[in-house]
Amino acid sequence: MPTLCRPEVWVPENIITLDETLSLARHLHANHPKLPLILRMIENTGVRKRHLIQPIEKTLLHPGFEVRNQTYLREARARIPEVAKRAIASAGLAIQDIDAIVFVSCTGFAMPPLTSMMINDMGFRSDTRQIPIAQLGCAAGGAAISRAHDFCTAYPDTNVLIVACEFCSLCYQPTDDDIGSLLSNGLFGDAIAAVVLRGVGGEGVRLERNMSYLVPDTEDWISYNVKATGFHFRLDKRVPTTMALLAPTLHTLSGAQGWNASELDFYAIHAGGPRILSDLSHYLGVDEQAFRHSRATLTEYGNIASAVVFDALRRFHDEGVPDGARGLIAGFGPGMTAECSVGTWSAAHRIPTQPEVRFQTLADALDVSEPSNVWTSVN
Amino acid sequence: MPTLCRPEVWVPENIITLDETLSLARHLHANHPKLPLILRMIENTGVRKRHLIQPIEKTLLHPGFEVRNQTYLREARARIPEVAKRAIASAGLAIQDIDAIVFVSCTGFAMPPLTSMMINDMGFRSDTRQIPIAQLGCAAGGAAISRAHDFCTAYPDTNVLIVACEFCSLCYQPTDDDIGSLLSNGLFGDAIAAVVLRGVGGEGVRLERNMSYLVPDTEDWISYNVKATGFHFRLDKRVPTTMALLAPTLHTLSGAQGWNASELDFYAIHAGGPRILSDLSHYLGVDEQAFRHSRATLTEYGNIASAVVFDALRRFHDEGVPDGARGLIAGFGPGMTAECSVGTWSAAHRIPTQPEVRFQTLADALDVSEPSNVWTSVN
Repeated sequence: MPTLCRPEVWVPENIITLDETLSLARHLHANHPKLPLILRMIENTGVRKRHLIQPIEKTLLHPGFEVRNQTYLREARARIPEVAKRAIASAGLAIQDIDAIVFVSCTGFAMPPLTSMMINDMGFRSDTRQIPIAQLGCAAGGAAISRAHDFCTAYPDTNVLIVACEFCSLCYQPTDDDIGSLLSNGLFGDAIAAVVLRGVGGEGVRLERNMSYLVPDTEDWISYNVKATGFHFRLDKRVPTTMALLAPTLHTLSGAQGWNASELDFYAIHAGGPRILSDLSHYLGVDEQAFRHSRATLTEYGNIASAVVFDALRRFHDEGVPDGARGLIAGFGPGMTAECSVGTWSAAHRIPTQPEVRFQTLADALDVSEPSNVWTSVN
Repeated sequence: MPTLCRPEVWVPENIITLDETLSLARHLHANHPKLPLILRMIENTGVRKRHLIQPIEKTLLHPGFEVRNQTYLREARARIPEVAKRAIASAGLAIQDIDAIVFVSCTGFAMPPLTSMMINDMGFRSDTRQIPIAQLGCAAGGAAISRAHDFCTAYPDTNVLIVACEFCSLCYQPTDDDIGSLLSNGLFGDAIAAVVLRGVGGEGVRLERNMSYLVPDTEDWISYNVKATGFHFRLDKRVPTTMALLAPTLHTLSGAQGWNASELDFYAIHAGGPRILSDLSHYLGVDEQAFRHSRATLTEYGNIASAVVFDALRRFHDEGVPDGARGLIAGFGPGMTAECSVGTWSAAHRIPTQPEVRFQTLADALDVSEPSNVWTSVN
């Protein structure tokens, strides 16, 4: 069974704090009839700061969809290679060892996809399979893991690189002032995550099985309006109640593995907002502390869409997880959809006499120049 | 090994002939300095008619990206179910037998993806895996087959529905008048194709192996400019030379199977334009007659992007292919990318004493109301 190795996560250098977000909301929407409610909702997200691909002054300007998408492409192309290289090094592999790239991103659009640019820029093999997925939103992190898992199940000695690139701030729409949009303006952050699923070997989550679930007739709960001004994110007020509908899927998946979803050792859950985590705690009968890493992602980076599950997993790697621990990975997003996996922690590559090696990465062994921006590995 | 069953292909009722296309080009671009060259190029495509999702008068108007994309979604949602139902019936399956949907389309954008709407509208199981791919252009037909093949290889008793929905006319940009754009205006057509890959049983192409290949540093040969007016298709003049770069991949893939790409029994090739087929004839050392079905698709429908390979395969089903025949399926598109498969024709479901059953479908057995538009099965 394939192993999901240590994810690498990068966040941009431009930081906006909760206080700055609240102050901006007060300033930009001074006459909004629901302003006090909106400010309270933003405070309640628990997001303390977020990292943005552009300074906030520039983020607030809408230069048109064309310029926005060019910014997306330029920044994605410039930033992805370092993150991907580190993830490949963390997995103990070289670029030429990668057989497929699953690329998930819903905050910009490119044809050909960024996988083609990565192959050209980074020297992946010309026969690397390209699996770009742009339309699953926050659930795409979970979906990427499942599709990579499927691929390694079909071809057991292959390795799949997953990249999640989300520049949510490039979907900021100054003219949208409904409550869902103003809440989103205070919730989402930017990040790039990369991780390798190794068909053979590797340390991390040995994936056992995966599952998708679509809640019937909820397709308008989270959606994009596609307009001349770009993607307009629509967040329905029913979304916070989603866990009542999706939690049973986590029980079903765990049950299929012969496990109890309430008694697992680690949980890497998409932290779309604080209520997802508190509700899931209720529906799974699990202490909220089990979701501490998802909560930390939300607090430090905001909702970084498909990248959340990878950042939560990265934190488990940093914390240390016992060999054999059983866990759950779940992404939630538009559809409403759950994309989830269960797996067993595998420390196969640990050197028994040198346990401290376990949580080191091989990144330093590569010639990776120090990035000017914030690396989560040095946070 | 999984079997790619009979594809169903639907084209809209609005027809534009070559003469009408030429006349329009003369009228709309009367003062274009290269008009004679453009008219000659359009004539040389060999496209005799195309089918459009809207009447030509409406197609020529650009009502804005928002309205365009709404038209895309409305028409896709209205038209896909019949095509998909027929494909599932052709495979001898029911909707509940489908485990995953690969949806490819580069001519509109939706989040959640159309797979979610299909699950809601058509009654697929809630745990159906959704694999939407929007960024591989014309190569996506080949890629969809490969990804479905991977899925059935991982889970051998599953069935995957592939849907290719291409409304190329909704990407018409009245202000683009470079040669590549004007040629494209006379080349592309609209269509929906659907096909089931059956993990067990079924009649059609038993898939043996697949391969992807990206020609290095050709990512700007075919691309979208993403603008406030929508997707602007960019076609570089080097594209017609692509087969020199991609034909070796077909030799490599066939060779890996122990076959000779020059000596196969059937070829379902993406007919992007006439030169692809004539060049491929040269590079593979194969008579052009081998590509008769791809050529027929081009002649009757134009370049219908990711749907071409399915229409070519559908024509092979109608013509009849001997059990055990060996063949090649190849999509080409932006990247520049080849997405190809090799397989063996399997007539496993034929009833030996009633050979005429072989090319019937089970569609009539379902309660499928007669569509008002053109079904290729009754062409």
